[in-house]
Amino acid sequence: MDDLLERLRAGLPAEALISDPDVMVSYGRDMASFCDAGLPAVVALPRTVEQVQHVMRTATALRVPVVPQGARTGLSGAANASEGCIVLSLIKMDRILEISQVDRIAVVEPGVINAVLSRAVHEHGLHYPPDPSSWETCTIGGNIGTASGGLCCVKYGVTAEYVLGLDVVLADGRLLTTGRRTAKGVAGYDLTRLFVGSEGSLGIIVKAVLALKPKPPTQLVLAAEFNSTSAACDAVCAIMERGHTPSMLELMDGTTVRAVNAMANMGLPETTEALLLAAFDTPEPAADLAAVGELCRAAGATEVVPADTAAESELLLQARRISLNALETIKTATMIDDVCVPRSQLGAMLDGTAAIAQKYGLTIGVCAHAGDGNTHPVVCFDHADPDESRRARESFDEIMALGLALGGTITGEHGVGVLKKEWLARELGPVGVELQQGIKRTFDPLNILNPGKVF
Amino acid sequence: MDDLLERLRAGLPAEALISDPDVMVSYGRDMASFCDAGLPAVVALPRTVEQVQHVMRTATALRVPVVPQGARTGLSGAANASEGCIVLSLIKMDRILEISQVDRIAVVEPGVINAVLSRAVHEHGLHYPPDPSSWETCTIGGNIGTASGGLCCVKYGVTAEYVLGLDVVLADGRLLTTGRRTAKGVAGYDLTRLFVGSEGSLGIIVKAVLALKPKPPTQLVLAAEFNSTSAACDAVCAIMERGHTPSMLELMDGTTVRAVNAMANMGLPETTEALLLAAFDTPEPAADLAAVGELCRAAGATEVVPADTAAESELLLQARRISLNALETIKTATMIDDVCVPRSQLGAMLDGTAAIAQKYGLTIGVCAHAGDGNTHPVVCFDHADPDESRRARESFDEIMALGLALGGTITGEHGVGVLKKEWLARELGPVGVELQQGIKRTFDPLNILNPGKVF
Ligand SMILES: Cc1cc2nc3c(=O)[nH]c(=O)nc-3n(C[C@H](O)[C@H](O)[C@H](O)COP(=O)(O)OP(=O)(O)OC[C@H]3O[C@@H](n4cnc5c(N)ncnc54)[C@H](O)[C@@H]3O)c2cc1C
Ligand SMILES: Cc1cc2nc3c(=O)[nH]c(=O)nc-3n(C[C@H](O)[C@H](O)[C@H](O)COP(=O)(O)OP(=O)(O)OC[C@H]3O[C@@H](n4cnc5c(N)ncnc54)[C@H](O)[C@@H]3O)c2cc1C
Repeated sequence: MDDLLERLRAGLPAEALISDPDVMVSYGRDMASFCDAGLPAVVALPRTVEQVQHVMRTATALRVPVVPQGARTGLSGAANASEGCIVLSLIKMDRILEISQVDRIAVVEPGVINAVLSRAVHEHGLHYPPDPSSWETCTIGGNIGTASGGLCCVKYGVTAEYVLGLDVVLADGRLLTTGRRTAKGVAGYDLTRLFVGSEGSLGIIVKAVLALKPKPPTQLVLAAEFNSTSAACDAVCAIMERGHTPSMLELMDGTTVRAVNAMANMGLPETTEALLLAAFDTPEPAADLAAVGELCRAAGATEVVPADTAAESELLLQARRISLNALETIKTATMIDDVCVPRSQLGAMLDGTAAIAQKYGLTIGVCAHAGDGNTHPVVCFDHADPDESRRARESFDEIMALGLALGGTITGEHGVGVLKKEWLARELGPVGVELQQGIKRTFDPLNILNPGKVF
Repeated sequence: MDDLLERLRAGLPAEALISDPDVMVSYGRDMASFCDAGLPAVVALPRTVEQVQHVMRTATALRVPVVPQGARTGLSGAANASEGCIVLSLIKMDRILEISQVDRIAVVEPGVINAVLSRAVHEHGLHYPPDPSSWETCTIGGNIGTASGGLCCVKYGVTAEYVLGLDVVLADGRLLTTGRRTAKGVAGYDLTRLFVGSEGSLGIIVKAVLALKPKPPTQLVLAAEFNSTSAACDAVCAIMERGHTPSMLELMDGTTVRAVNAMANMGLPETTEALLLAAFDTPEPAADLAAVGELCRAAGATEVVPADTAAESELLLQARRISLNALETIKTATMIDDVCVPRSQLGAMLDGTAAIAQKYGLTIGVCAHAGDGNTHPVVCFDHADPDESRRARESFDEIMALGLALGGTITGEHGVGVLKKEWLARELGPVGVELQQGIKRTFDPLNILNPGKVF
């Protein structure tokens, strides 16, 4: 232990190392419930690649596990400290190194906040699409670590599609450069993509080359109310079947709508069973919204309200963005699921989730990136009540089983972490697990990088 | 040898096995020059997954190398037979298994021809963007094997972005399913993406789930003539810098233009030094073309001709598509390079290539996916002339060195195969090579899958 601190001090300035247990506690866990966490031996906050290399060399020499961390907004426990580990927080490496309009790329350090990058590239007429609802706090390193999604994905895809190249410090401290600055490239296996979504288990991302898009026109949002989630899901399918390309297509069920109203007084329709938010960032969004509004009405919408202004649109977006937080206020605790199904199965997924809620006598609010078939059923419960907690856990599992049965995945964007480790094997099957573990061993033979996560 | 054939016959019907040397010769090589090829021991043409598994189990049992093949239009020798190998041709597995409008996916066997799929999904109002110029003959399996690009990539990206999930027969005959049918998913490492571009070295792709887009409006093309390639490259940079999103942005240098005219009497401008083709598939392409035409004029275009009709546009596209073939008629042989640079370096890349042509006293015609910075310098030479052949080989290498020096990659879309093996290590560096080889060992410990390719 003392040896660890001493060795780390040889390569990092004093202010980059925290060993005070009271302070370290605040680096213990991310935003997931029900995930184990331990007390780190030390928290390191490097500012340079060399310092990260020094941390990893030390960890390898002493066989100490390392847990990389961004802003700890993760929802799977993937950033949770393990007992006696080095927490390696990248938040101080937060420089935007380059923005190029001609090449449409940004080069950034991992600690850059998503929203900070978004605003910076906007000033150059460019756009970095990935926009998790946590965008004001989460980091690009964490976004890459989890391959995170957001509201834009139905049109613009997920983080993975915007990562062109990486600098990665490996478990033994060596520096690896993957990928490229170019628009295309096929030289060798795609190591870049392997790191995206690897949840800190293969290496420490210290630099990223990100693809950018031209800044689109401001999107205009339409809100449609439905008497049932299944009618709203029918509308989603009709919109996609007709070839529309909304820049956002989100669903909030009645429980979510009322929770958002209760928390933030948003003035959303109190009695609706499902609110669908559709947006377009095309040059003439009004025409697109009108067409989509028609499809909503045909699917049974009771009310269709296009936002007249960008400000109104922003308000609706804001309502959607705070949904997870709002659902957390219903009871003392939540478990947030992240099941993604083929969008043709979205209605079945939501009906099935409602049946599970009823079976277990629980409130399960659902918000969803509906256009992607990505649902977030949020199981609300009282964590002081052991029986309710047990039912919460069981319903959470049953939701994943339902997702798999419908041809989906246990995690659309939040990742595996600690929360869904046992379920990963069910989704991948034995052959898949064996190969994934083989890859892990290739990159981290001593198993010091975020051990106990993912597998 | 006899043992091999006998064992294969136990699991494949007679018509699925070819062992007549005269016939086998025609399965010897792809479209790349200067790449070694040997005579296979047998050519297998399975129709089912079980038959592929039988081939791989047999190969593993007898330690016989296996070379997967699609249509053998590859340009790197990656599909070339090695002496005594099993050629595993997937062209008979050519069924389109499913097309879903709501889920926007197609499920296909690997032998489906790119253009056949494109037409089939068009009938459902859908679009499969990846469109290598060889699209009328190349297979989806080969496209995935090489992560191939095409003309659409500047707007729609490459094959990799359209592969959601795969069924893969591993070296030992086990079946692996990767990825998903859903729009998103982050369960474990991205094995799907690892197979894309792996050139048959990690497993045999027997099924693919592909993402589709809504069918866009027919694109309209503009042709701009320039007195120099560097002026055309300035136009490319200006177009991208101003935030345009063309559906195609292609460049043909004067040599290419004249070769196309000579071959197909296309009526392209004989005296131009560079022809830029820009297209838009937006609802109002005329306005976009006008804006881009202005930028071309500002960059020095001597003539800007927007196509008035879809038929005119198709003709220009056709001219671009036959460029590689046309350049092959200049001399008895060609070496086709595939260097991709950041698009801001495109001008420097073309100027440098011209200087290399001059230095070696060779004709090097260039066509390029200019919007992506992906150039195809085609070194034309007489293969009966040993000195010219040597100079061709040297200039080919010097072009790759230039690409790397400009921050680019040795291969934007054609892959490594046999042709660029030695160069791959230069691009990846020792750490990258070590990890890539580790991955190869994880998937193919006996090194029977396309050995001698890529690494
Ligand atoms: C209110 C709320 C809303 C959310 N909305 C969304 C949403 O819409 N879509 C979505 O996808 N997610 C969402 N999330 C989840 C979370 O914000 C994302 O997973 C985000 O990408 C995590 O970023 P972070 O910086 O907080 O990373 P952390 O939580 O600190 O870490 C996440 C993972 O990445 C690893 N990691 C972090 N940095 C590095 C690095 N430099 N190198 C290697 N590994 C690293 C960690 O080890 C961990 O495994 C939400 C969370 C909250 C609390
Ligand atoms: C005139 C011409 C124009 C071209 N234009 C372009 C272009 O614009 N863009 C571009 O990217 N390429 C282009 N190419 C190159 C070539 O067409 C592509 O690389 C194409 O993807 C190869 O497909 P194929 O079916 O011919 O595969 P093959 O050449 O048979 O094989 C290619 C690779 O994939 C592997 N493979 C094939 N099938 C499988 C399978 N089922 N499982 C595992 N591995 C497999 C092979 O082993 C080999 O490594 C062009 C070629 C020509 C001749």
